[in-house]
Amino acid sequence: MGELSRSTGVPVPTIKFYLREGLLPAGKLTSPNQAHYGEEHVRRLHLIRALTDVGGLPLASVGKVVEAVEDRGRPVHDLLGAAASTVDPDFTPAADPVSGERARAVVEDLIARRGWRVPADHPSARALAAAAASLLTVGHGDYLDFLDEFAAAAERIADSDLTFVARGKSPEDMVERVVVGTVLGDAMLAALRRLAQGDSSARRYPRPSVPEEAAESSCDKNSG
Amino acid sequence: MGELSRSTGVPVPTIKFYLREGLLPAGKLTSPNQAHYGEEHVRRLHLIRALTDVGGLPLASVGKVVEAVEDRGRPVHDLLGAAASTVDPDFTPAADPVSGERARAVVEDLIARRGWRVPADHPSARALAAAAASLLTVGHGDYLDFLDEFAAAAERIADSDLTFVARGKSPEDMVERVVVGTVLGDAMLAALRRLAQGDSSARRYPRPSVPEEAAESSCDKNSG
Repeated sequence: MGELSRSTGVPVPTIKFYLREGLLPAGKLTSPNQAHYGEEHVRRLHLIRALTDVGGLPLASVGKVVEAVEDRGRPVHDLLGAAASTVDPDFTPAADPVSGERARAVVEDLIARRGWRVPADHPSARALAAAAASLLTVGHGDYLDFLDEFAAAAERIADSDLTFVARGKSPEDMVERVVVGTVLGDAMLAALRRLAQGDSSARRYPRPSVPEEAAESSCDKNSG
Repeated sequence: MGELSRSTGVPVPTIKFYLREGLLPAGKLTSPNQAHYGEEHVRRLHLIRALTDVGGLPLASVGKVVEAVEDRGRPVHDLLGAAASTVDPDFTPAADPVSGERARAVVEDLIARRGWRVPADHPSARALAAAAASLLTVGHGDYLDFLDEFAAAAERIADSDLTFVARGKSPEDMVERVVVGTVLGDAMLAALRRLAQGDSSARRYPRPSVPEEAAESSCDKNSG
């Protein structure tokens, strides 16, 4: 167990806790005081830490993911869906009922138009409708003019995401990639979007070209 | 003031509070007990509600945005930058120093490669480096293989964002569009990405086509 702790960076008491909670399978006893831990334990510990540290999941949810990973008969698509659902954002701002109704229709139309094979009650379809309803409520429904542009970008990103997941070497690794990629990918995307906005704004609204040297360093010139 | 409240949906005591805090300019007195409020007050109230309700900004930050809006001599790019900086995500997960150093280099290279005109100390450059460092720390640095794919998607989205902002009819309206679009756009994008992932996964990992009827409704058949 000391070795397992060293190779993963997870403290021994934490490993013991995961064993007690059933998140980590028991090692193979080699003597009454010695147990052997193998590659699967290392993989599992990485998964648990990724779910808790990166995904911010409570232990109860980690248990559900571990259960899904251990069910080897489960189709891959279902396993990935279970992993993805652990990191669904809960976005439910206030919106008036009329906007809510209109937003749901907008989302239904979009899913049909893109030919996306997702259930109508997908949690992200609800989250998207909530955001759209918010836009309509605050009087900026015209932002939805760009919904297809956003959807096309999301498709490219999702394709990269799935390529990244497909590189996984085991169900544990694939699930870990879903969670890590989705959570850190959201953060990366938000940051990239702001950087690209900064660039786009600098190009559209160039600073009026004041003669900076003359304005700012006149004192230096006087003193020099 | 009663009319202003009815036309914007903001309660009178709240309007009085905004007046006291200097967020809303005083109306033009038409008699000792009557003040006239015009289009600019309606616009300002919409902006304040968008910043607080959608952007989740504390009132102190709202004050700073209002100040920026009122400074008519300010170049548009600076104004938009000030608005955008109010909704920068604070993402700072733990990462080891080696990963941190490597991540910063990755981000610097990316910004140079894309030719983005943004300052090196842009808060989103730091946020992006933090996410990248996290990926490296948890052993999934290969997700960064897709960074340019993500950046290209972000550019398309940012271009839509700026088109949306440019439709604004006043500095207030443009700032409102920056904040509303950025915050609700993040939520929309996260949801769209998950829907597109669901679709991409369904295509890559189709369910094994078991004869569902035979497997699931054998009881009905027996009873029927």
